[in-house]
Amino acid sequence: MAMLGIGFAAGLAHSLCGMMVRAGPRGVESPKLAACTIRDAFAATVMTSNSGHPLRPRGRPRRDRREDVPETLIRALEDLLANRPADALTLRDIAAAAGTSPEMVRYYFNGKEGLIAALLDESLVRVRDRLDGLTADLARAKQDHTRQIVDCLSEIYLRERLAGKLFNAVFVHDRAGRRLEDRAGRPDTIVAALHAVIDDLKERGHYRPSVDTGRAAIMIMSLTGCPVRLLETLDQRWIDEGRLGDPQWNADVAAMIERFCCP
Amino acid sequence: MAMLGIGFAAGLAHSLCGMMVRAGPRGVESPKLAACTIRDAFAATVMTSNSGHPLRPRGRPRRDRREDVPETLIRALEDLLANRPADALTLRDIAAAAGTSPEMVRYYFNGKEGLIAALLDESLVRVRDRLDGLTADLARAKQDHTRQIVDCLSEIYLRERLAGKLFNAVFVHDRAGRRLEDRAGRPDTIVAALHAVIDDLKERGHYRPSVDTGRAAIMIMSLTGCPVRLLETLDQRWIDEGRLGDPQWNADVAAMIERFCCP
Repeated sequence: MAMLGIGFAAGLAHSLCGMMVRAGPRGVESPKLAACTIRDAFAATVMTSNSGHPLRPRGRPRRDRREDVPETLIRALEDLLANRPADALTLRDIAAAAGTSPEMVRYYFNGKEGLIAALLDESLVRVRDRLDGLTADLARAKQDHTRQIVDCLSEIYLRERLAGKLFNAVFVHDRAGRRLEDRAGRPDTIVAALHAVIDDLKERGHYRPSVDTGRAAIMIMSLTGCPVRLLETLDQRWIDEGRLGDPQWNADVAAMIERFCCP
Repeated sequence: MAMLGIGFAAGLAHSLCGMMVRAGPRGVESPKLAACTIRDAFAATVMTSNSGHPLRPRGRPRRDRREDVPETLIRALEDLLANRPADALTLRDIAAAAGTSPEMVRYYFNGKEGLIAALLDESLVRVRDRLDGLTADLARAKQDHTRQIVDCLSEIYLRERLAGKLFNAVFVHDRAGRRLEDRAGRPDTIVAALHAVIDDLKERGHYRPSVDTGRAAIMIMSLTGCPVRLLETLDQRWIDEGRLGDPQWNADVAAMIERFCCP
């Protein structure tokens, strides 16, 4: 499992740094990250200068300097996104929902894009934690590996679907002309973890040595992630959340994958 | 296969009518549709009044009344969408790319939304034709049913991916608060066809009678459609178009589905 630990952590740190440069005020160096919450990340970003000395935010009104403003802004964005797409939201909408001013969004997150990046970072930290847990569980497990993979990914896709939608929306915009090589998102994070997990299961003899790791990873992502996306695009008579929450669903998905991957 | 023929055609006609009302000038009744190209649809929509009498467009400059303006506008939109998201495009951009004026977009399509709807309609007509072809092929086939389903859907998802992206983008906007019950899109069209196909294969004994049709349809959609979407979101080291074009890919997908659906 070493591959997952190293490659994955490096990828995530890289990705988080990329996002934090965006999320923090211009010219502030991004810190190295281990595990962190968005509040830690925010604190590390805004409180450290280029030279590494602590730096207090300057030149802003004190009355809005509540301890929880960044957190409140992220939660307000989350609530608003439940009913409206990101590009239909203004700084003013978000600030109003958080009970603060648009200046605070610019101050703490350098604008709407930075606030969105912070929400995505927060989600990615949770996703990484969940995948780390899966890796640890699989290392100990004697059986039901595939079912554990499916349960973990289904949970991620269902719980983090707001971030998923947001990532895709932002990503479509970023792809206008160029691919942002310096930003690994959730899909890259998940597929990297899956590659490591599948390779490990092949080594331990649970999956056939001839299984194409890349192909299997894409199929597992498709079977677990796509149904959640279909909740958004298909009429409810075809699929609903209850169906995806039904344990039989995950059992069937796991059975399909096992018939493809197991000896 | 009767179910596919009737339910599917009704759904599509319903859906196309919904779109054509949007695409055409206000107050023009949408005609009944059999198979039609967007040019037919356009002609039928703009050339027929509420009372059924032929109606010439009025009050617009004659110099831009070229026969191919609607077609040219749709192709221009298609070209522009290859590099930019729909909401980053203005009427002026689209008109300039088509060598005409923004007024022509308003005249023929009632604005950008109508032009986008026309592009989606065109794609949906192709998708329906391809699904009708699949139904006919499966009715004759003695074997390889699943492989034919997978080949057909892969082809649709790869070829029509611009419309797919566009549908999702538009759909996200439309979902801001409400679901447009009167507009069935490509996903609903495909899942309806799959339900009919799977039920038919169950009746003919090719699939197990106990197969849950809805579950199998979602899994088939996920396995064939999601990898195309991942092309957009994953780094190329994980997946590329060549891999999806590889016949082994479809063979593997078909094998997974068969192991799940066949006796």
